[in-house]
Amino acid sequence: MRISSLAERSGVPVATIKYYLREGLLPPGEATSATQAQYGEQHLHRLALIRALTDVVGLSVARTRTVLGLVDSSPEDLFAALGRAVAALPPYAEEPGGDHPRARAAIQALGWFYDPHYPAVAQLEHALAAAESVGLRIDEQRLRGYAEHVHAIARIDIDGVPAHDAGAAVEYAVLGTALYEPVLAALRRLAHQDVSSTALGRPAAPSSAPAEDDAGR
Amino acid sequence: MRISSLAERSGVPVATIKYYLREGLLPPGEATSATQAQYGEQHLHRLALIRALTDVVGLSVARTRTVLGLVDSSPEDLFAALGRAVAALPPYAEEPGGDHPRARAAIQALGWFYDPHYPAVAQLEHALAAAESVGLRIDEQRLRGYAEHVHAIARIDIDGVPAHDAGAAVEYAVLGTALYEPVLAALRRLAHQDVSSTALGRPAAPSSAPAEDDAGR
Repeated sequence: MRISSLAERSGVPVATIKYYLREGLLPPGEATSATQAQYGEQHLHRLALIRALTDVVGLSVARTRTVLGLVDSSPEDLFAALGRAVAALPPYAEEPGGDHPRARAAIQALGWFYDPHYPAVAQLEHALAAAESVGLRIDEQRLRGYAEHVHAIARIDIDGVPAHDAGAAVEYAVLGTALYEPVLAALRRLAHQDVSSTALGRPAAPSSAPAEDDAGR
Repeated sequence: MRISSLAERSGVPVATIKYYLREGLLPPGEATSATQAQYGEQHLHRLALIRALTDVVGLSVARTRTVLGLVDSSPEDLFAALGRAVAALPPYAEEPGGDHPRARAAIQALGWFYDPHYPAVAQLEHALAAAESVGLRIDEQRLRGYAEHVHAIARIDIDGVPAHDAGAAVEYAVLGTALYEPVLAALRRLAHQDVSSTALGRPAAPSSAPAEDDAGR
């Protein structure tokens, strides 16, 4: 298809597509003349991925390029590639590789895989320090409780990794990490309401809205 | 203590303390002359809470005032007060009370307490729509898996609510919702790494860092 059809089908303006081409986010089409090129379904998919990473996840163009590079690289070491891809996501540690005593202690108490350079270690350190600063230090019992259930959630996530396609696996890891995080945060707040509706003496009232037969499917 | 000592002990500059007094976030001290007042331990605690809400959680002064009002009100209906307090936290729904078909279907499929005006419903709707837009629609199996473990996490949270002190309960609900959320997000990324270190053939390598005896305590 021509660039005008690509714009129409993707909903991305021609000027933006040209910008992505110049920035190397979108691979060039097949040149059919000095001024025209043909684009295919893979360009449509790539455009949807670029929009997801920039508009929905909120990555900069530079970080989007990093993630797309990993998607394209068909990495042999998938474990390392997934780590690098997820490292492109916010929040960004100010001081990667520094000392993270709270996070290290927590991860080692749990017996989890520990790589001090993985950005989530700095992220955990920062989060634990912030909680501690307001008197909400996480004791070992709460840590183990949280960890047990978060680990179960992570197993659900990893079960969904596309097998036999490293690029698709990287894509899923980045998008799933970024986009299921807000789902889980919203579910936690709703679960708080559900638990306290019982604990605090409120009836677990069904809503007045009609039940949906196709709920959640 | 005088305002200068309050500043010294809290680490909050005198000018900022005066700003909080003017804005009504900090209750006035006991006047000892036309130009002086005495402050107590309750002012120190309040200052720490104000700093947590503004600097750590990132609330505006107006939203901080809302939360502090709930902390002070010793609410009779704790369930409603907790809901209002957590509603002061980001993310903010653009359109509270609108139609949220995905979230409603999900919450009703789970049989959880459903109040269409609770901001987390709009938050879930937005998060589900974003995931759907990139082809990561959450099917019922994943929803139920997530929900089971998030509900268990929420029970840990609710078990920690201070009993017999409604103000402290509101304080805990706001700070705990805001500050444990990043802890859980970081733990999920670390759990991904732990799970995939096994699933993808990496040894669940212990770090070279020395183990800590006081881990997590």
